[in-house]
Amino acid sequence: MKAAIAGASGYAGGELLRLLLAHPAIEIGALTAGSSAGGTLGAHQPHLPSLADTVLLDTTPEALAGHDVVYLALPHGRSAAIAGQLGDDVLVVDCGADFRLEDPAEWTRFYGGPHAGTWPYGLPELPGQREILKGARRVAVPGCYPTAVTLALYPAFAAGLAGPDVVVVAASGTSGAGRSPKPNLLGSEVMGSASAYSVGGTHRHTPEMEQNLARVAGAPVTVSFTPVLAPMSRGILATCTAPAAPGLTAAALREAYATAVRDEPFLRLLPEGAWPATSMTLGANTAALQVALDERAGRVVAVIAIDNLTKGTAGGAIQSTNLALGLAEELGLPFNGVAP
Amino acid sequence: MKAAIAGASGYAGGELLRLLLAHPAIEIGALTAGSSAGGTLGAHQPHLPSLADTVLLDTTPEALAGHDVVYLALPHGRSAAIAGQLGDDVLVVDCGADFRLEDPAEWTRFYGGPHAGTWPYGLPELPGQREILKGARRVAVPGCYPTAVTLALYPAFAAGLAGPDVVVVAASGTSGAGRSPKPNLLGSEVMGSASAYSVGGTHRHTPEMEQNLARVAGAPVTVSFTPVLAPMSRGILATCTAPAAPGLTAAALREAYATAVRDEPFLRLLPEGAWPATSMTLGANTAALQVALDERAGRVVAVIAIDNLTKGTAGGAIQSTNLALGLAEELGLPFNGVAP
Amino acid sequence: MKAAIAGASGYAGGELLRLLLAHPAIEIGALTAGSSAGGTLGAHQPHLPSLADTVLLDTTPEALAGHDVVYLALPHGRSAAIAGQLGDDVLVVDCGADFRLEDPAEWTRFYGGPHAGTWPYGLPELPGQREILKGARRVAVPGCYPTAVTLALYPAFAAGLAGPDVVVVAASGTSGAGRSPKPNLLGSEVMGSASAYSVGGTHRHTPEMEQNLARVAGAPVTVSFTPVLAPMSRGILATCTAPAAPGLTAAALREAYATAVRDEPFLRLLPEGAWPATSMTLGANTAALQVALDERAGRVVAVIAIDNLTKGTAGGAIQSTNLALGLAEELGLPFNGVAP
Amino acid sequence: MKAAIAGASGYAGGELLRLLLAHPAIEIGALTAGSSAGGTLGAHQPHLPSLADTVLLDTTPEALAGHDVVYLALPHGRSAAIAGQLGDDVLVVDCGADFRLEDPAEWTRFYGGPHAGTWPYGLPELPGQREILKGARRVAVPGCYPTAVTLALYPAFAAGLAGPDVVVVAASGTSGAGRSPKPNLLGSEVMGSASAYSVGGTHRHTPEMEQNLARVAGAPVTVSFTPVLAPMSRGILATCTAPAAPGLTAAALREAYATAVRDEPFLRLLPEGAWPATSMTLGANTAALQVALDERAGRVVAVIAIDNLTKGTAGGAIQSTNLALGLAEELGLPFNGVAP
Repeated sequence: MKAAIAGASGYAGGELLRLLLAHPAIEIGALTAGSSAGGTLGAHQPHLPSLADTVLLDTTPEALAGHDVVYLALPHGRSAAIAGQLGDDVLVVDCGADFRLEDPAEWTRFYGGPHAGTWPYGLPELPGQREILKGARRVAVPGCYPTAVTLALYPAFAAGLAGPDVVVVAASGTSGAGRSPKPNLLGSEVMGSASAYSVGGTHRHTPEMEQNLARVAGAPVTVSFTPVLAPMSRGILATCTAPAAPGLTAAALREAYATAVRDEPFLRLLPEGAWPATSMTLGANTAALQVALDERAGRVVAVIAIDNLTKGTAGGAIQSTNLALGLAEELGLPFNGVAP
Repeated sequence: MKAAIAGASGYAGGELLRLLLAHPAIEIGALTAGSSAGGTLGAHQPHLPSLADTVLLDTTPEALAGHDVVYLALPHGRSAAIAGQLGDDVLVVDCGADFRLEDPAEWTRFYGGPHAGTWPYGLPELPGQREILKGARRVAVPGCYPTAVTLALYPAFAAGLAGPDVVVVAASGTSGAGRSPKPNLLGSEVMGSASAYSVGGTHRHTPEMEQNLARVAGAPVTVSFTPVLAPMSRGILATCTAPAAPGLTAAALREAYATAVRDEPFLRLLPEGAWPATSMTLGANTAALQVALDERAGRVVAVIAIDNLTKGTAGGAIQSTNLALGLAEELGLPFNGVAP
Repeated sequence: MKAAIAGASGYAGGELLRLLLAHPAIEIGALTAGSSAGGTLGAHQPHLPSLADTVLLDTTPEALAGHDVVYLALPHGRSAAIAGQLGDDVLVVDCGADFRLEDPAEWTRFYGGPHAGTWPYGLPELPGQREILKGARRVAVPGCYPTAVTLALYPAFAAGLAGPDVVVVAASGTSGAGRSPKPNLLGSEVMGSASAYSVGGTHRHTPEMEQNLARVAGAPVTVSFTPVLAPMSRGILATCTAPAAPGLTAAALREAYATAVRDEPFLRLLPEGAWPATSMTLGANTAALQVALDERAGRVVAVIAIDNLTKGTAGGAIQSTNLALGLAEELGLPFNGVAP
Repeated sequence: MKAAIAGASGYAGGELLRLLLAHPAIEIGALTAGSSAGGTLGAHQPHLPSLADTVLLDTTPEALAGHDVVYLALPHGRSAAIAGQLGDDVLVVDCGADFRLEDPAEWTRFYGGPHAGTWPYGLPELPGQREILKGARRVAVPGCYPTAVTLALYPAFAAGLAGPDVVVVAASGTSGAGRSPKPNLLGSEVMGSASAYSVGGTHRHTPEMEQNLARVAGAPVTVSFTPVLAPMSRGILATCTAPAAPGLTAAALREAYATAVRDEPFLRLLPEGAWPATSMTLGANTAALQVALDERAGRVVAVIAIDNLTKGTAGGAIQSTNLALGLAEELGLPFNGVAP
């Protein structure tokens, strides 16, 4: 199998390459970029010496043709046109937002412009989704925040243990904001500082979280979501709370989570008393998860740590790729992180 | 006026000294410590050359006697015995938890052991509290998290705009955990990582938040509180949400906040569109505050940034000191922070 | 006295404002900027609420006229034209590089273009320089690295204890690179990483270091200088070594340093056994200094920590301002830093 | 092949395990620890879920017996006794300092106590050393700083292009100081700060650097070495300078480096104009290297970045293991790092 990557000079592209270089069944083919085309990958991803001399091509259907898998790591709005020219037998995995939402009105509200469509959603852990991904030829990779929040709360909703008034605050490393230089993302600004942004229900990942949780709950769910920029390059730590079902006990809650993750290769319910840290998952495709019942406040509190670039983007993309291509779901994906 | 500091070798003690060195009406007297007694301050607070050669005394009533103000920055449980020997005319300002809670049962539940009593609560911005602090001779400095959360939400509760099901997630710098070396606080562990702790209603600051907000609301309030350790030395960024009152508009919400902070010297409601970052308040006694109405989720979302050591501990302590001593409330306290 | 600041929206400008806000004898007047003109300072320096609503003017001689002091914090090459229109009785303090070098050939070699001239060099600790600065009406603020390196080594050269083959490696926080967004200065790139730049004698501050040390030594000095970008916002830690004079003892070396700094208000020779950390000087106008004799390698090793924005730029500028205006040299300048 | 790790709960042990988990020819056997024995690995290395439930044994010869390879990651002074009981046919790889130095007097001077002996030095890139390591049954893994400095300068000394007066300043992440909690290693102390330590020729790695470079030079070399603690968890960035040989040109210098690294799998000479950053090597067994001729100062300046825990400790240990066991030198070792 041969894979092309469109958007190889960005952070998502770099992480796809890091993981694919270690994948035993996928070979790396064409790498494309926007304004960086014509140069070598080494100028943009100096941590990947194996590909230092690979020349970046322009992102065109021609450059991407002739591969079994094409990963799109592009700004939103650009994937549909490219995918349309790639042939239905090619697996196209979109790391952008274009095909995640089912409701066109929600798309337009949060992203503007017309909806491009909906592709199979690349979150195998979502109940029922693994079967949909097997053999798929189009995959919409979830957003990094929705990955974290959905994995944290689906066990509670699947077991009917949580109510629909969800509140999420998630701290993310700066790589989630991408590589375009903006003043507020300068090291001088972010080191030593935590800041909130897109507050009050305005973050584009909000409807995606609601879509996922409502599907599991079988009823509408609202999410009050606040993202926080933390002074670290990688990682998401999401604190997710929902009203506890009447009569819920801590033991029943934990049992539901233990059951939900039992056969999930990449979900780790931490031992009781341990709480997630993003360092537990740096560079790994795993999620570290813990849950508590706050009896005083009457809420389920689930906390999850993922690496936003691995499980939250590139690792999740390859996990779905494995399913789509009929490979073992875990193939080539790291379970163990890099720490300290 | 002459002030003694018990616990001068810790982080709270160091920040008290930094601020008092710039205070025009308070002179620094005895400095005491526990196991560091006998050495000089310079070995512990090398950023304070003005006091480098001051010898640390043992923390005894004798050492602390003869001062107009005594600051206690000690582990909880030790303040009552010392304060009892200091004379009723001495202003004793306790930076620890011993005298913050009004309900002895809550104290015992969260801290263990018998309750030492309740002192005037050192948060001047809490409605009605400023008058109580004028002339007080005992002050209980609020916890750093309750300072942030109370300042973020009291305008909404005072105006009747928020319901009692509060959810708070707050990211804190590591200095909030103090100076005792523990493996999980090593730089190698915390740099590059965010982690949750004391999840599920177990953090000791929870009942203090509820006490404050219930007082403003005139009715019980529950707080689901999750603290997050962020990879920075200083700062708290608290995201505080509560159900919006029926019919609440964004304009009415903002107006309530603008009114609440209008005459508050240290509270800054940011311009619309700007959101707090802890770097806005580093080293300053200010709080940077912003609020939004999440109409989709039906919640008020208030975000606040403070420096946990300044407004959250030592600066708040001096603000109350100024009131207690009949000085101008702002005297000697920095409005402007250190950035980037 | 009234001061104008040209370049108020950058990091040097922000630090000048932070310090001037606390200066008892200087009032802040016009603030000017380049592309940020027309907006308010609050959008650029949100840590300075005292000036949040001040409107930024265009950087023109008209805007800067009518002040007793004008600070120029501009890209190099622009100061001469502005200064020429400001009147000889106005104190003009240039935080840029234009007037630091005495040798026009060196200027052209390192900066390109014609040399604008030489102004009194704003490093009062340089032997003989304090007298020159008293009453000056033009001051060239030293570069941040030359400030650190000169203060670290002048005591050894002044006492004839060091030879001319100087090697310096200095780690700097990212604020030294300014506020223009560049990909390599993104938080994602700098957090968790140290990197070298301008290696091999190419950094523009090199001739300035040599000029200063040669003046003290009374003979030519070469400096092999390597700057390192460290993952922190502020601070320079410079390790400066030079061949030890024959027969030099550790005691004689320390004595020379102790003598040199004895009457210097802002230089701190640390106690034996303590070594500088940039956190000792964050936000303060001090330098923390230590020296050792490496007998094995035959070299003097001096290590110094400063805050690049305070003693290294804005604080140094104000220290020279005080001298030029006939004020006490220390007036309004912080001795104590912000830590942890 | 089966490997035991003594000291599995520390940082070096954790990195050995991370790498061995991905090694195709080595299976992980017994894990031992000191005070952590009896607990599970998961409590200490939560980033390694594959081994979360493995119980830590006491570090005894019995626990370590029956393995093909035994890694010792212990405080210095303890390895000889254990190795003496492990059998001459077992490969013992000591990550500590006990067997690195050849000169017993140097050992005693820098470490105190009697010298335990000298083992084959585990730096395959050192000219002639690769052959010595093939089939060895005892390996002394180099120190992290000597690894960096030797790799940076051996090409210059091997080609006779550098003189013996070496000056090195190296910034290291905090993991190099290990996991024992000390106040100066707290996150609050190290974040935002760079500091020097063991200045003036006192760092224990100094004689090891001199030993290596003198061997290549065929003549004595002195190293003035200053280590700097940088606010990052991992990585060493070493700036290494030495007097340039008379008549040396930049082209000849670069050619010597290009030749030296041509067949070295883990050494990367960066393209001209690019300079090393530790992020280029995070989690990888590679060294990123660049060299310049500072003609003005007459010095060769080589800068190198490695991951102190990977190439600087555990990766280097496995590289030598591969040679000793007759495996391909690169087997199981990552070339590509984790960034950003």
